[in-house]
Order: sequence, then C-alpha cells, then structure tokens
Amino acid sequence: MLTDMEIARAATLRPIAQIAAAAGIPADALVPYGKYKAKIDFDFIRDVQARPDGALVLVTGISPTAAGEGKTTTTIGLGDALNALGTRSMICLREPSLGPCFGMKGGATGGGRAQVAPMDEINLHFTGDFHAITSANNLLAAMIDNHLYWGNATQLDPRRITWRRALDMNDRALRSIVNGLGGTTSGPPREDGFDITVASEVMAVFCLSRDLDDLQARLGGVIIGSRRDGSFVYARDIKAHGAMAALLRDALMPNLVQTLEGSPALVHGGPFANIAHGCNSVLATRLGLKLADIVVTEAGFGADLGGEKFLDIKCRFAGLAPACAVVVATVRALKMHGGVQKSELSREDVGAVTRGLDNLDRHVENLRKFGLPVIVALNRFTSDTDAEIAAVRDAMARQGVEVCLCTHWSDGAAGAADLAQAVRKLADQKAGDFKPLYPDDMPLIDKIRVIAREIYRARDIDVPATVAQRLASYEKAGFGRAPVCIAKTQYSFSADPTRLGAPEGHVLPIRQVRMSAGAGFVVAIAGDIMTMPGLPRVPSAESITLTDRGEITGLF
Amino acid sequence: MLTDMEIARAATLRPIAQIAAAAGIPADALVPYGKYKAKIDFDFIRDVQARPDGALVLVTGISPTAAGEGKTTTTIGLGDALNALGTRSMICLREPSLGPCFGMKGGATGGGRAQVAPMDEINLHFTGDFHAITSANNLLAAMIDNHLYWGNATQLDPRRITWRRALDMNDRALRSIVNGLGGTTSGPPREDGFDITVASEVMAVFCLSRDLDDLQARLGGVIIGSRRDGSFVYARDIKAHGAMAALLRDALMPNLVQTLEGSPALVHGGPFANIAHGCNSVLATRLGLKLADIVVTEAGFGADLGGEKFLDIKCRFAGLAPACAVVVATVRALKMHGGVQKSELSREDVGAVTRGLDNLDRHVENLRKFGLPVIVALNRFTSDTDAEIAAVRDAMARQGVEVCLCTHWSDGAAGAADLAQAVRKLADQKAGDFKPLYPDDMPLIDKIRVIAREIYRARDIDVPATVAQRLASYEKAGFGRAPVCIAKTQYSFSADPTRLGAPEGHVLPIRQVRMSAGAGFVVAIAGDIMTMPGLPRVPSAESITLTDRGEITGLF
Repeated sequence: MLTDMEIARAATLRPIAQIAAAAGIPADALVPYGKYKAKIDFDFIRDVQARPDGALVLVTGISPTAAGEGKTTTTIGLGDALNALGTRSMICLREPSLGPCFGMKGGATGGGRAQVAPMDEINLHFTGDFHAITSANNLLAAMIDNHLYWGNATQLDPRRITWRRALDMNDRALRSIVNGLGGTTSGPPREDGFDITVASEVMAVFCLSRDLDDLQARLGGVIIGSRRDGSFVYARDIKAHGAMAALLRDALMPNLVQTLEGSPALVHGGPFANIAHGCNSVLATRLGLKLADIVVTEAGFGADLGGEKFLDIKCRFAGLAPACAVVVATVRALKMHGGVQKSELSREDVGAVTRGLDNLDRHVENLRKFGLPVIVALNRFTSDTDAEIAAVRDAMARQGVEVCLCTHWSDGAAGAADLAQAVRKLADQKAGDFKPLYPDDMPLIDKIRVIAREIYRARDIDVPATVAQRLASYEKAGFGRAPVCIAKTQYSFSADPTRLGAPEGHVLPIRQVRMSAGAGFVVAIAGDIMTMPGLPRVPSAESITLTDRGEITGLF
Repeated sequence: MLTDMEIARAATLRPIAQIAAAAGIPADALVPYGKYKAKIDFDFIRDVQARPDGALVLVTGISPTAAGEGKTTTTIGLGDALNALGTRSMICLREPSLGPCFGMKGGATGGGRAQVAPMDEINLHFTGDFHAITSANNLLAAMIDNHLYWGNATQLDPRRITWRRALDMNDRALRSIVNGLGGTTSGPPREDGFDITVASEVMAVFCLSRDLDDLQARLGGVIIGSRRDGSFVYARDIKAHGAMAALLRDALMPNLVQTLEGSPALVHGGPFANIAHGCNSVLATRLGLKLADIVVTEAGFGADLGGEKFLDIKCRFAGLAPACAVVVATVRALKMHGGVQKSELSREDVGAVTRGLDNLDRHVENLRKFGLPVIVALNRFTSDTDAEIAAVRDAMARQGVEVCLCTHWSDGAAGAADLAQAVRKLADQKAGDFKPLYPDDMPLIDKIRVIAREIYRARDIDVPATVAQRLASYEKAGFGRAPVCIAKTQYSFSADPTRLGAPEGHVLPIRQVRMSAGAGFVVAIAGDIMTMPGLPRVPSAESITLTDRGEITGLF
C-alpha cells in the first residue's frame, strides 16, 4: 500500500492561481507563497462581504480512540465529493502544529486520496502563520519582563502574571521554569513557563478576529496579570498590542491550497481542541461562505470537545449558523469504545460495536441540542463486516439518523458521494435551527455546569473556592457575558481518559480558570490537561531525514 | 525630510520575476513569497555552478558609533551605482533580526534612497528563514531534554549540556533560566537559557553550508554537551539532525528582493557580527558570483569584527577571494572617535576629525594584512565642512588610499558613482592578493592571540586555565584546524566599549570558549558580551501600530 506521502507525490498539483480562479478568486487578490500556496488579500475579502452566505457544514466525530476515525479525511473527501457533484464547495481546515509532527501524530493534512497539498510544506512552516503567532506571544512576554525590569510603572504584581511564553514545539522541559536568573542585569527572577503555540491566547484571538482592526483591539484587551488590589493589567497598558498586530498582519490573510483532487481549501489558524477552542479562523470560514455554496469545516477531537466549542464559541462570535453536522465514526473505533483492545480490532464483534454505539448515540444527542440535523459518516475499513455495519445503521435508524458509508481514503471523491448527497439535501432543506447551548447572560459558573451536565453528562462540577472567586472576579471586571472554553481530555466524556464509551454521573473537576479577555472567553481546565505536550520515548523526529534530492522522508 | 518608510512607500516596485529576469534568473527558478520576494531554487543554483565567478567586494566600516556610518546604505548604493554604470552587480546582505526592530535600532534594510524593499516585510518575518532556524534550534533542545527524560542513553552529563534554546527576540529574562520544574512529568530541572536566534550555531551552520547535504552533515556535527569523561555528544547521537535539516530545507534557498532603484539583492542569513560571525549566507554569495560581474556584500559592525570574520571564516570556508574592501566612515563618526559628544557633532572640528582618523587608519592597515586593496567611502552629511573632508582625504592619501564621497542616501545611485568607478577599477586590475590572517594548522590559542595582536592591537590575551584546558580538549577531539570567531563589543578595539579611537597595548580577556563544531569554528568570548540582548526602557515596539488601512507605522 502506498504511504500518504507517496500518494501525495504522485499527484499533479495545479498552480494555485488556477485553483483560485475556479473558486472565484482573481489572481490579483493572491499573495503567493511558492507555487501551490497563496494568501488572499484583505481588499478582496472586503469586496465580497455583501454577497450572500453559503451553507456551513460541521464535520465532527465520536470521542477519538487509538484506532483513528478520519475526521480530516472526511472533511476533505466531502468537499471533493460536493465539487464532483457540481456543488461549489470550500473546505476550511486548521493549520497543523509542528509539535505533533516531531512527536507521534504525524501530519494533519488528511490521508490516502483525501489530502490537502503540498503536505510537507503545510505540515512544516506553511506560510509562517504559527511563527508569527509565536513571535507576537513572546514579544508581549518580553515586554512584560522588560516592564518589570525598568520599574513596573503599572504596578503589575510579579506573582500574578498570567501571561506565559509559547513555542510551537512539544517541549515538556519548558512547562515550568524560573526565568530572570543571572543577577541585576537579567532579573528579577520569577516563575514562568511555555505553552505550545496552539494553546496561546494569541492563537485564539487570531482565529476569532473578523479583521485587522478587531485583531488589534482584541490584542490590546489581553490580560497579562493583575495588581495587588486584584485589578487586571492589559496588553494595551504596556503598549504591546500595536507591535503584536504588526507581527500578525500578513498572517491574518487566509491561506488557499488544494486537495489532491483539485478542490479549494482554506487552511488557516489552528488551536488544539483539547486545550483551546479547536477550529480554524473566523476570517477563513466567513470568506469561504462568500465563495461557495457549501463550506465544509472540521472541529478538532470529538463533538463534545471541538464540536461544542465550534458551536458555542466560534459560531456565537462570528454569527454563524451551521446547516448540519456530520459525525465521523468507524466500526473499529466503536469497538474500542465497546471494550476491545487495539490488537483485536480486525475480528468481528457485533456486541462490542453495539456497546460502543453508546458513544456515538451520545454525540448525536448532544448535537441535536444545538438544533442541528445530524448525519453519520462511517469510514469503512476492509475488516468491517456487514453485520457490524448493520448494527450501526440499525442503531442510528432508531434515532432517525442517516449513516453514509465512506471510502474516500482509497477512492477519493467517489468514496464520499453518498455523504455529499445527504449533506446537500439537508443544506437545501434548511432543516437546521441552530442555537448555542447557553445564553450570554448566564453566570460563568452556570455556563460551566450546563456544558458539564448537558454535554459531558456529569452529575455536577467540582469548583474549588479559589476558582469560584476567580470566576466572580471576571464577572466583576465585566466579562460575565463570555462563553466558556473547556480544556479537557479528548478521550472521554469524563476527565479520566481511560473511561471510554459513554460514562455518566461523574463529577467534572474544574482545577483552574483563566480569563482570555482578548479572545473573549473563559478557559476552564477540567482535570489534568497539559498546555505543553512532551515528546514520546522515540520521537518521530528521529526518523526524519533529507534525501540527496532534498526530499523529506519519515515525516509521515 | 521624508522618513525611510515614506520614501519606500513612494517607490514603485517591479514584480520580482522582472528583477530576476534582468539578473539572469528564469521565472521557473523562483519560489515566490508575495509579489516582491522570491526564493531561488536549488536546481537553478546547481545549474550555474560551472560558470566563472564575478569579483567580490567587501563593504565594512570603522568601529561603529552612535553617530551611525551607513554601511548598509553604502552596500546598496554601490550596487545601484555599479548597475547604473552598466556593470552587472548583485548586492548580498544579511536578513534583519526581529530583536532590534522592537528594541531601538529600527530596521536593517538601508535608508533614504538606498534601501531594499519591501522594507516592512523584510524587517518582520521576510520569508520565514529565522523562524525556521529558531525551530531547528529548539527542536534539538527539546530532543535533548526528552533524551534525559527517557533515560539518557548517551550518558550526556546534564551539568555539561552546552546547547541552549533560541528566540528571535530581545528578551533578557530568558538569558538564564531553570527549566524542567514541576516534578516527575516535566523534569529533571537544570540550568538553561536562550540566545537570540542570530547568535545560534544553527544560524552559523545555515550561513556556512554549501548545499543541503552539507547542511545536514554540519547539523549532525553540532556538539550538544559532553559526558563525565569529557567526550562530546553530538546532535547526530540523538538523531536530531535530519529533522533539523527538514525544518531548514526551504529556508536555505537564497531570497531575492530589489533595491528602490531596481537592482537585485540577495538577502539571506543574518548572524550578528559581535556575538556571531556576521555575514550573509555562503550560498547567496556564491550564487551572486555566478550571476554578476561584481558582488557587493556587507559584513557587520567594524572591519575588526565582522570584516575579520568575513575574511577568516566565511572566505576561508567558501573558498572566496575578495577583490577589494570598502571601509565606510563619516566625518561625524570620526569626530566621535576623536572625543566629541554626539550633541556637538554639527560644529566644525578638524582636530577631532584628525584624532578620530586613528580609528580609520587602523582598520585600513588591518585590511591590508589580508592582502586587500582598500577604498574609503565617506558618507557625506550637510554639516560636514570642506576642511574636515580635506583632513580625511589627506590622511588617507598618506596611506595611498582613495576617498570617495558618497551621497547615495539622498541621491541614490548617482551619489555613489565615484565609489563605483573606483571599485570597478580595482576589480578590473585584480590587484588583490587575498590570504587569511592565520593558517589552519596554528594552535587554537595562538589563533586567538594572533587576532588579538594583529587586529585588536592588544598586548596579549588573558586566558584562564579552564579556558585553555577547554581549547586543548577541542584540539584533542580533532577540531584544531578550526578558525576562531571572536565574540566582542563592536564599539572598541579593546573589550571596553567606552574606549573609542584606536586603543592599543590592552589585554583582551577571553572569558569563555565554545566549540561550534557544526559551523566549524571556535567561539572566543572576549569581555562582557551578551548573546541575548534586552529591550530598552522605552522599546520601539511601543510606538508600532496598524493603521485602519493595515499599514504598519512606527517601525522605522
């Protein structure tokens, strides 16, 4: 079997200006980055604002397992299939982080015949957006410490600095550091740490900004810490937001690439969905809606995590109303939720599938709470038996949900034709009646509780007094209308990553909260969740090499 | 008077493919980054290798002062003037670092009518090369700590790790840190620190590599630390070099931009000259020599610092033999070397000019030790008087050195026409007889001493026993033939930045040495020299902002 990289190399890509032209983007609106990548300039984006919007389709999934589900491939395959059916579609994806590339996940550009290209460039530096975000994050950090060094005119309490540094790297040694050592010329020392760039508030601000003005204003509103009296100090108080916005200016233009089948794809922004809000940029999605009849976009991890945040945070802020949601599942992943070990997944086990369907059922129910029609995309493996697939169909039929078998991984657009037909039908029917899960004016602690109960099916939340006080201080400071971003393991509805299936009645521990005032949401950290991953025992970086022809091997 | 930014905005740039075509680079060899920047691909670079080389001209300067000398503008103005005379020229410059942009220096793209463009893009992220270098540096760091975390199979002594992290930012709080805090899952803790990216050995490797193979091999040879028995551990021992090379692959293609007068310029790589070797990439310079009759290139800071390293390190490794050297000076800067305060520079003071000429004399003498013919470029200010200029001409005439008055800052190419004529004459005469200052097979400590005595005019060097032992260990490990890179203040021939003019008889303290085995040189740190700058009391970042038209103001 060919690897993803081999399939990608065998494909003939078209010049990006051709892809753009077919999508209705003129050549003079493109800022090329190499032959197959381009940014789309702000003038063009302003020019298309008066156009009507296409329909928005969310691709989300069951709780992820080690078996893999194929959410990105489904997003790409669906976009390709819609185009093949003659529906103008635009695919909107997140940009990959460098961290997982060198860890163990590999790339994030799809797989098989459902890929965006050029995969090596997209997975490595792409158009430099994440580097710009890292720089903006760290410029603010350097200006904070410089502010302390030169006398601390804002009276920021050095013990209450909440802004952390960032790198787009899996680097556990930087999670927790003491900086400012070395004496008078480098101090004062203080506790500090690095998050991975995709967890930075700058990433969230970047992804939620509607335009450059909004970006600069949001950056000014970023909280960097507080004074002894508890009042917040903002990035604008140390005049950092203008330079941060300058660093992000070019990055904020959405990136256009193509799928292996020549569909256009906007790949822009990329917060992780477990430790951040998990969806691509508002600018890219809104641009896509002006250009296409159907925009297919992905939210990270399961429907409970990335899906909920897409709906409650991104759609709320950007005024988006999805037409429907596609939940991606596989028989193999359902069997894992049903208790089967990874090594045993190729053996038929209808009972395990049925048990695992509890997880899928739960996600379908959850999405309907947002008023969305749901379709299940079942990515087919050769080891799946007819009886196992029938079990999925039967269970979903009881909920009135259509199951579409998908083979876009091996067959490209043709393998997602049924799914595309079903999606197009729902989009045409306008059957959706989207509403967020909770209103803006609910108290912050109640928002956390509603998500915990309605989505995670927890009995309650455990909120220590210090956390409750902090939430109260956010409300007092005027942030009470903010939505909540739950930072949580992606593997379980509970905070325990080993509890697969559909656990309920648990208590969700809220260890910590942070006010992302620039992004406009409160982060609630549920259980043990790292904002800086580590590398595994044998990082994939060890196998990466340049051949004598300058090709990268071992990346995928 | 117009600002540099206003002059730059008023200029009409040509599409980069037109600039490339005029320089003999076909469109299919270009990898565009926006409309006015492009990388040049490796296939084309390989194709031109059989061509003869043009002449190489080094632009260097007197010891820099707060008055400014205009070395970058002279490099650009000279290139423009040569082109205007009908000599095909190529300008080779370093890429700017983000650090000084947000500190106080401003941009590094020239000034007045002698600029490379687009200045804001070149000064901010450009084509992402420095971000790639930062990532490669920090991937190695993350892999080192990950190696300790998972059992330290190489038996690297955690107390003897010499590899540091890097950011392209002025951030003194990161100079010296303790990382790995937070317990079992993040540790073990150890002392660590960040250098600015331009000081990273990866930057030096990048700038000295002849091609991708050489790059990967050099990265493998980077020393990360040593074992208890003193033996070195290399990047290849933890299999980091392949992934580092993958991160740097695209960055290693030289960047083509244009001057405001439409001359081609290769802007690629950018180590600082005080804490690193101070010149643009070997790949860019060698490519320039294949494309142009005269390549004009700049080395950072004074002729003692960047100039010496250009000649003893870059030219030695790359097999380059410059045709001549241009030493840039101004009457104002000479007066500062003669003891005048910055506020008094506009008043005529022939005596101070004469005293300050000691500095220029010294640099001219030094450059002749390398067998190079020398020309002095005197950048004219309106406050300069005829008597002051005559003092410079007279002093240089005694050394047989031509002084060319330059006004390219205000007049563009026409303002450097005399200089261009003089340079072309020297290049045509082939009067140069370049040789490095010391041979490869001299002991390392003697190399340091030769540079200190011949260039810095020190009576001797002060080398603590621990430093001498370390130099001996480098020789024992097989690195005895390496040249030496002196890390030193740029303001004085001595290690004391306040001693302007031409001090002599001092002792140069060698505080520390480091083996940059991947780059291929030994770094000798003379006196107090920071490898991570700090921000000033009022960083220029505070004045940077995005206008509502998306333009960056306050950067220059």
